[in-house]
Amino acid sequence: MSSTDIRGLAEAARAASRPLASATGDRKNAALEAMAAGLLAGEERILTANREDVAGAREAGNTAAFVDRLTLTPTRIQAMARGLRQIAGLPDPVGEVTGMWRRPNGLQVGRMRVPLGVIGFIYESRPNVTADAAGLCLKSGNAVILRGGAEALRSNLAIAKVLAEAVATVGLPAAALTVVPTPDRARVKELLGLHGLIDLIIPRGGEEFIQMVRETSQIPVIAHDKGLCHTFVDAGADLGMAAEIVLNAKVERPGVCNAMETLLVHAEAAPAFLPAIVARFAQAGVEVRGCPETRRLVPAVRPAADADWDTEYLDLILSVRVVPSFEAALAHIARHGSGLAEAIVTADHARAMRFLREVDAGAVFVNASTRFTDGFEFGMGAEMGISTQKLHARGPMGLRELTCEKFIVLGDGHVRRSQK
Amino acid sequence: MSSTDIRGLAEAARAASRPLASATGDRKNAALEAMAAGLLAGEERILTANREDVAGAREAGNTAAFVDRLTLTPTRIQAMARGLRQIAGLPDPVGEVTGMWRRPNGLQVGRMRVPLGVIGFIYESRPNVTADAAGLCLKSGNAVILRGGAEALRSNLAIAKVLAEAVATVGLPAAALTVVPTPDRARVKELLGLHGLIDLIIPRGGEEFIQMVRETSQIPVIAHDKGLCHTFVDAGADLGMAAEIVLNAKVERPGVCNAMETLLVHAEAAPAFLPAIVARFAQAGVEVRGCPETRRLVPAVRPAADADWDTEYLDLILSVRVVPSFEAALAHIARHGSGLAEAIVTADHARAMRFLREVDAGAVFVNASTRFTDGFEFGMGAEMGISTQKLHARGPMGLRELTCEKFIVLGDGHVRRSQK
Repeated sequence: MSSTDIRGLAEAARAASRPLASATGDRKNAALEAMAAGLLAGEERILTANREDVAGAREAGNTAAFVDRLTLTPTRIQAMARGLRQIAGLPDPVGEVTGMWRRPNGLQVGRMRVPLGVIGFIYESRPNVTADAAGLCLKSGNAVILRGGAEALRSNLAIAKVLAEAVATVGLPAAALTVVPTPDRARVKELLGLHGLIDLIIPRGGEEFIQMVRETSQIPVIAHDKGLCHTFVDAGADLGMAAEIVLNAKVERPGVCNAMETLLVHAEAAPAFLPAIVARFAQAGVEVRGCPETRRLVPAVRPAADADWDTEYLDLILSVRVVPSFEAALAHIARHGSGLAEAIVTADHARAMRFLREVDAGAVFVNASTRFTDGFEFGMGAEMGISTQKLHARGPMGLRELTCEKFIVLGDGHVRRSQK
Repeated sequence: MSSTDIRGLAEAARAASRPLASATGDRKNAALEAMAAGLLAGEERILTANREDVAGAREAGNTAAFVDRLTLTPTRIQAMARGLRQIAGLPDPVGEVTGMWRRPNGLQVGRMRVPLGVIGFIYESRPNVTADAAGLCLKSGNAVILRGGAEALRSNLAIAKVLAEAVATVGLPAAALTVVPTPDRARVKELLGLHGLIDLIIPRGGEEFIQMVRETSQIPVIAHDKGLCHTFVDAGADLGMAAEIVLNAKVERPGVCNAMETLLVHAEAAPAFLPAIVARFAQAGVEVRGCPETRRLVPAVRPAADADWDTEYLDLILSVRVVPSFEAALAHIARHGSGLAEAIVTADHARAMRFLREVDAGAVFVNASTRFTDGFEFGMGAEMGISTQKLHARGPMGLRELTCEKFIVLGDGHVRRSQK
């Protein structure tokens, strides 16, 4: 595929974005229903393409876990269809007037939510993400250019073909969604240069990849980055509650970004809490690495190295540190946290409120597991990812985060008086 | 100044951002009052520094208009102090909970407004902007690194010294605001690479400069770009109202980004509207360049070239085009507009509503002059600039746009159930 074609594809997406932006909610929901039906009807085409991808990935020597994420089954396709129908059931964010006020001169000024335009989404090799992202972008009135993992290219092309055909049946442009039809990595850089055609790049992937995107892109980027989440067990906390929360945060699904990596325990709570919780972690197969004070209280714990406080294990490993005060816990989190999710377990109202206000992260929890950091769990219906940056969208990104607000101004012949 | 110093300056700003973020509104307002008082008390120091800048700018052969913008007077310093007191009077955006809802499992999820952290502001040679920006950033709980025009460096350093000293008197960190103490342009690129220390870059300036910032920055950028604003006079519009609005939009202050550059007139309105309005524009000293139909109706009008539809004159020049339909007006705006501000003059409700919904710009007006595109006029109290992009902030950027929203989650021992 030549350089011109990537631009051509973005131009087609741009052209499609105008009718999408003004489409009614009813029409967009009809498209989502048609997309869901299309996935079910196109099951065989999709599975055939997927089998080729899976065979290729096996030959290339990918891990079993990788191949599993890549593999589609009828059940997984049904789940994709169900996901699209759920998106149809969500409120339409477009056209919402989020506020309107009257100026002393009678001018009415307000804000209206509108689509961003064209979104470039770059993601890993799970073909089901293709349908989710296409659905969220369509519902929010945006065109989307999808660039999944190279190993999933045939599957993604088959899914996108089915979905685009479905979109066209309700009178919306098929170019509402497009898969970049080449595994060539150089094309990603080309995409990142199309300022003026693409409005937002959402990359998901490892740190190095995100860093490359940040350095290369001339288009605004909202990165789905790493998660180094802490839970702080405060002095006077309900230790039974604390145990359930930290176990859940670490072991329920250790390989995801909202799992806990470091447990901070107030020195007053440590003697009563640590021996029992370390034993429960051991039972759950978790390797604990501790600070000197942790090891004084529980000598069997292995020592933590300095690097442990900055490591996202994504595994059954946990670093534990005893801190002398609430302030020391805040300082540790400010220094080592990744800004994804942070939690406190406490019975003290004032400290709960300070933790909420002062901890600088996309999601801040009191007496709950960081594992809830998720668009579905927050009641947003679905998510494009979890933003670890501050601009525009922070934390789980749902439909609302795929829109922006413009000012609308209603006058009655208003002109501005000179200020000279 | 060495490379290390720019990083050191950003690290100091980062350290200052934590106490600023948790400062109460009362303390921030006390700082703003002290800053205003400091400007008045420091008038002589500031004027002395400014005289050196002005002498330098004259020697370097800058235009009289440039030197005028650079020049400070006691009256201008008083206006800067008044501006800071006005910012003190605005509501504190930090800590606002913009929504909270309860999940079926009892978890309460909400959004809280918090500062961004450290803002890098790069702007032109008007020293009064230094005080405005410092005030807005302080009120919104952010530290700011200021990089004004090289010609205003002495003035900016004198102003920042006075302001930082004032901030320190109320117990907030003096590093809340810092002027980059060198005119060396290479330092700007260094600043743009400090991802992780600086959270947002706000550049104001010409297109080439903005383009350089976009290409270089590894930090999110919100650009204050150009304004190519249209007014569309619809069929059936009140032509008296239309005349007042388009005259105001063009001539009240032609050199600013929210002035009108192109007038679009519906073919049905053109015969009655154009001859009279072209005469009034001529009286106001405006050179009109028209499409063939405009020239058929008003033969004295000079022909517009293709390039005129894409030109931001910032001057007493206006391009005029007669369009056959409402849709043609929308298409012209979609193709040539810069996304800053667009207006319709109409008596038709349905078209007014369609214009509001479908025109893709930071501010969309019905029956009012685009000249109102301004933070003060919109009731936001003050502005850091007018964003011409879509992400995070669109249109005038006030205090709210210098913050972001994080999720806050209140539980009672909530843990996430496995979904397997």
